[in-house]
Amino acid sequence: MTSSLSIQSPIAFPQTSPGLPVAVNSTAVRLKTWVLAVDDIRKIVAHVGLDELMDEMIARLSEAFSQFDPADTVVPVRTGFNYEHPHVGLVEWMPLFQKYRQIVVKAVGYHPHNPQVHDLPTVLSTLSAYDPTSGHLTALMDGTFLTALRTGAASAIASKHLANPQSKTLGLIGAGAQAVTQLHALSRCFELKEVLVFDSDVQVAKSFVERVMGLHLQDIEIRQASLAEIVAEADILCTATSVEVGEGPVFTDAGPKPWLHVNAVGADFPGKVEIPLSLLDRSFVCPDFRAQAIAEGECQQFAEQASIGPELFEVIKQPTRYVNQQRQLSVFDSTGFALEDQVAMNMMLDYAKALDLGSWVSLESAAADVKNPYSFVVGG
Amino acid sequence: MTSSLSIQSPIAFPQTSPGLPVAVNSTAVRLKTWVLAVDDIRKIVAHVGLDELMDEMIARLSEAFSQFDPADTVVPVRTGFNYEHPHVGLVEWMPLFQKYRQIVVKAVGYHPHNPQVHDLPTVLSTLSAYDPTSGHLTALMDGTFLTALRTGAASAIASKHLANPQSKTLGLIGAGAQAVTQLHALSRCFELKEVLVFDSDVQVAKSFVERVMGLHLQDIEIRQASLAEIVAEADILCTATSVEVGEGPVFTDAGPKPWLHVNAVGADFPGKVEIPLSLLDRSFVCPDFRAQAIAEGECQQFAEQASIGPELFEVIKQPTRYVNQQRQLSVFDSTGFALEDQVAMNMMLDYAKALDLGSWVSLESAAADVKNPYSFVVGG
Repeated sequence: MTSSLSIQSPIAFPQTSPGLPVAVNSTAVRLKTWVLAVDDIRKIVAHVGLDELMDEMIARLSEAFSQFDPADTVVPVRTGFNYEHPHVGLVEWMPLFQKYRQIVVKAVGYHPHNPQVHDLPTVLSTLSAYDPTSGHLTALMDGTFLTALRTGAASAIASKHLANPQSKTLGLIGAGAQAVTQLHALSRCFELKEVLVFDSDVQVAKSFVERVMGLHLQDIEIRQASLAEIVAEADILCTATSVEVGEGPVFTDAGPKPWLHVNAVGADFPGKVEIPLSLLDRSFVCPDFRAQAIAEGECQQFAEQASIGPELFEVIKQPTRYVNQQRQLSVFDSTGFALEDQVAMNMMLDYAKALDLGSWVSLESAAADVKNPYSFVVGG
Repeated sequence: MTSSLSIQSPIAFPQTSPGLPVAVNSTAVRLKTWVLAVDDIRKIVAHVGLDELMDEMIARLSEAFSQFDPADTVVPVRTGFNYEHPHVGLVEWMPLFQKYRQIVVKAVGYHPHNPQVHDLPTVLSTLSAYDPTSGHLTALMDGTFLTALRTGAASAIASKHLANPQSKTLGLIGAGAQAVTQLHALSRCFELKEVLVFDSDVQVAKSFVERVMGLHLQDIEIRQASLAEIVAEADILCTATSVEVGEGPVFTDAGPKPWLHVNAVGADFPGKVEIPLSLLDRSFVCPDFRAQAIAEGECQQFAEQASIGPELFEVIKQPTRYVNQQRQLSVFDSTGFALEDQVAMNMMLDYAKALDLGSWVSLESAAADVKNPYSFVVGG
């Protein structure tokens, strides 16, 4: 049968190995990549529970931010390709190097036409981890679900530090996939009473209630609202739209509450912005990753970099210093930070290990003689 | 059993339209990634034959170079992490965007201590292909074997254009993994009589003959030689060493033949060089990729970029213009070009399709509702 991958359970590994001669070729064994397929992720979520997984994501990410040291963990600005044919889209790589323990790279695509054109999610992603002592690809898994999870968690953490702790009303502008985890994460940290939803696509706004029905939000009223009502009523506002380049902002800066905290999630593309500059100008603006926020986030709009506040990890390291921001206007400029992906990936690997999930795949050719690239064919 | 990946044979998808068969959850099906594991690569090589595979790699790569248009195929300079702890190493990403058909990214590690410390190859690599219309990861395979194959093929192509067509004597400085495919590729294009081998590790030089024994080189005498003898006798010289940063060049520019052609393969790291500047200064220097050669290749040594000749694809597009270089000193500054990886990957995918190899893995989470990242858990 031609279809057999060299895949085996970590339980069986390395004693039995269908495709590879373990006993004779130890190199092959050490070059296995731990692959978590969608079924494995699904099993982890089913085992842990969505609420518990989000709580743990928030806790682990808070801890990672509070420990984050840019000298030890190098996070370059992501690079990639963006284009406008056949539709607007980009594929990028977000790398992180934790000296000298782990390299994590998230490949992430953003294709806002995917739902209509392909019936696929706007964001598609995979996560890869490498061992920096050898360059070996140690693990590979889905990043689509985890991107939504960690983006929600990051907004919840920013809101815990910068929003009014008594926040009751959440506004959502943009009610697509990311809005689901924004609400979920914030509902774990605030006693929300009301969620006001707007989407430029009425069907998307309408279907939002059904999409979050599986979450434990019984005491929260969720209803459609106008942009003006959302801006006037929200204590916390999340923007997660696919607004087109040059078409933002997505709402008007008309009379927000003096303590409004905004999680600006959607801006992740040069020229794409969601927040009115006038609101940014009056707000404490906290980017997840300054250089990237300037390139792709709301911070693109600032003429002066001096207008940009500290990065989120700095706020988290000195919470008392910034506690007054909870009574003032604030914006979390969330462009996506590779640390969030590393934390999400390692959380899933920990669960995969505990639950004996995932498969070991021989991806990199394991030459019997490391100095002969053909020996994996001849002698392997 | 906990280890079952969502893997199924491509045979189970009779509608051969690439990766788009019909099933219960069409989103999930369309999000499968075609994974070629080491066993699949091995089967392809066994089916095709090493000589034929190298010949085809050379032919396909020649064609790709002759068709290459930088306006249609975007190749950024690779980026990544390089470090000196616990040993010298780097992990890099080499992306390519063929508008608007394919994105290919090679992840490649270079860890010269791997053979001694880990009994692993110096170069470890994987290749990923993405669909730029959706961002979907369409295919994933080993890049370690293919890097060696395509690096050999690139040297053969450069030599066909720039070396004396009557070349009989090949010099190899550095007799590790890359030297095997350098010799193999050149033996397919030149009637070599003699191969002179040097490695700073005598055991590596000694074992070279055994390592190439499986190739059809019966009429070629392979023997160890001193650096001075190699430089004096070679018609074509390949350098593929792991010389350390700041320790190059790896030979002395003492009396080469006036038509010597050098394939400088090893320089791929800032500060790492193999070729004496005096020889570069007298030679026609042809980089595979100018910007990268200036950053990491032999071209690092030039004070003036004007000293750098055309890129290889330009030579291939105008062979008669450069035919005189075959009688003069020339250096191919081979740093690794993502086009080579794309050609190698697509060649293997073509064979995998013809031979029904590989497996379809659900890596990206396929939500039943694309606007609900949790629906792959609930409704998938």
